[in-house]
Amino acid sequence: MGARPTNVRIFEVGPRDGLQNEAALVAPADRVSFIERLADAGLTDIEIGSFVPPRWIPQMAGTDEVARTLPKRPGVRWWALVPNAKGLARAVAAGVDHVSFVVSASETHSRKNLNKPIDAAVHEVEVLAAAAREHGLPWRGYVSVAFGCPYEGDVPFDAVLRLADRLLALGASELSLGDTTGMGHPDAVRAGARRALEAFGAERVAFHFHDTRGLALTNAYVVLGEGALVLDSSTGGIGGCPYAPGAAGNLSTEDLVHMLDGLGIASGVDVAKIVDTSRWLEESLKVTPASRYYRFAKQFRT
Amino acid sequence: MGARPTNVRIFEVGPRDGLQNEAALVAPADRVSFIERLADAGLTDIEIGSFVPPRWIPQMAGTDEVARTLPKRPGVRWWALVPNAKGLARAVAAGVDHVSFVVSASETHSRKNLNKPIDAAVHEVEVLAAAAREHGLPWRGYVSVAFGCPYEGDVPFDAVLRLADRLLALGASELSLGDTTGMGHPDAVRAGARRALEAFGAERVAFHFHDTRGLALTNAYVVLGEGALVLDSSTGGIGGCPYAPGAAGNLSTEDLVHMLDGLGIASGVDVAKIVDTSRWLEESLKVTPASRYYRFAKQFRT
Repeated sequence: MGARPTNVRIFEVGPRDGLQNEAALVAPADRVSFIERLADAGLTDIEIGSFVPPRWIPQMAGTDEVARTLPKRPGVRWWALVPNAKGLARAVAAGVDHVSFVVSASETHSRKNLNKPIDAAVHEVEVLAAAAREHGLPWRGYVSVAFGCPYEGDVPFDAVLRLADRLLALGASELSLGDTTGMGHPDAVRAGARRALEAFGAERVAFHFHDTRGLALTNAYVVLGEGALVLDSSTGGIGGCPYAPGAAGNLSTEDLVHMLDGLGIASGVDVAKIVDTSRWLEESLKVTPASRYYRFAKQFRT
Repeated sequence: MGARPTNVRIFEVGPRDGLQNEAALVAPADRVSFIERLADAGLTDIEIGSFVPPRWIPQMAGTDEVARTLPKRPGVRWWALVPNAKGLARAVAAGVDHVSFVVSASETHSRKNLNKPIDAAVHEVEVLAAAAREHGLPWRGYVSVAFGCPYEGDVPFDAVLRLADRLLALGASELSLGDTTGMGHPDAVRAGARRALEAFGAERVAFHFHDTRGLALTNAYVVLGEGALVLDSSTGGIGGCPYAPGAAGNLSTEDLVHMLDGLGIASGVDVAKIVDTSRWLEESLKVTPASRYYRFAKQFRT
């Protein structure tokens, strides 16, 4: 068990994992405003979108334009999710310099979500990793359904660790272990986090929680107790479900930062600016934040 | 630090702390249906309402009728909150046999919420306790704002312990330490819980969290780690705010039971029946549950 950290890095996924699951179609220019507000709030790692075909995920159409428009910022990394070679080519053409690739820890989820078995998905990552290396792009490897699969139920954590190992061997600069549908219970999350942090080192393993069943913040608390240094979250807790406004999505950035502030763990993120950004999301973009802290705090931000 | 329990008792406050803060005025007959559904789901301690003047809290008008209508159930305790001698007389007349009294841990909250300083509130409890003893009624003592006060900020936990001590000396059968406006951070809650559990014993101390800032379930997790045996919660997580449907209220019973089930901690409560009850609250009574787990699970309960 690692010591609880004094500093953590928050990896903001709102503009990608958040917006891709919202009913609202947000225009690229507004996505740029969103992302700049996030950087202004102190976030240093922001996933700005994904390069998937717009017919798969219309919310992510125009990530090219988002990437081209965003000015470089010292100390801030813009990341973009890339599903295949074509997406990587688009990312490179748009000047993206940090990318993410995805695999699933369960066969059924891999087939349903990535349309291929796990081994084929890892092979795809191998090809993408080679291309990323050519272009000098660091990449992050997401492992989906690491704490439970909606099709298969429990996912053996040995399989998660083996998959994570393969991604690191292929050159991933960091991993993100995803509780994709919010199935992880605190004890299972603690046990898994402990093994992953020991195996790979806290600098290289992020945790990615969804609040589907209300446990995202508790699980974040639990992995902090194991020494986790990197947590994924989404401003407003957006990303729930396209047809249920306000439904629980990703762990909310403001819920997380509020907790970290109370625990004396520095993140460099200004919770009031995140609340202001969620308010702007709600009022200007018609995206309804699910975040508890936001719903509380917005009444005092006028 | 106590060992994490294998069994806990859930004290359901939805029909009182929940409904009293909802915009919907629920008729006594519907409140009876609500309470009976809760008992059917396995809850053994249910606060059925309060005997406050209806002009203070119109949502609690008719608690007399609720109490008279509810049949006794073996193994189930109906509780009612009582603010003063007149309320106690009403409770006794209605056949209530478990009552709750309230004090606040901060002077300002005591004056604003109970309309008297702390010492006067304790004196009121002393009078009520004497009357309860006469009638053979066990009583629970709530300590409000035990983990933070919206007017004063931090509340010294020494003051909470002294107040709790006074309530036990007056004959309280159990205490409930309330994070009334959801200000408690996990570290502060852990430290306070440890002291309270050591001082009074886990059988006599309940913890009462609100999810205002999203930390209710995390704080419940934390006190379980300290050996807590009794947790207050509200079905649907109702009780947020009269004018913000779906705003965070009390710790949600279904979020709590879902977590307990995953941790292997028995509560005797059937989470599916709680979800069905929240659905009934939403569809029949127009009370919007804030519970995350409910919002997730209801799609599978048709």
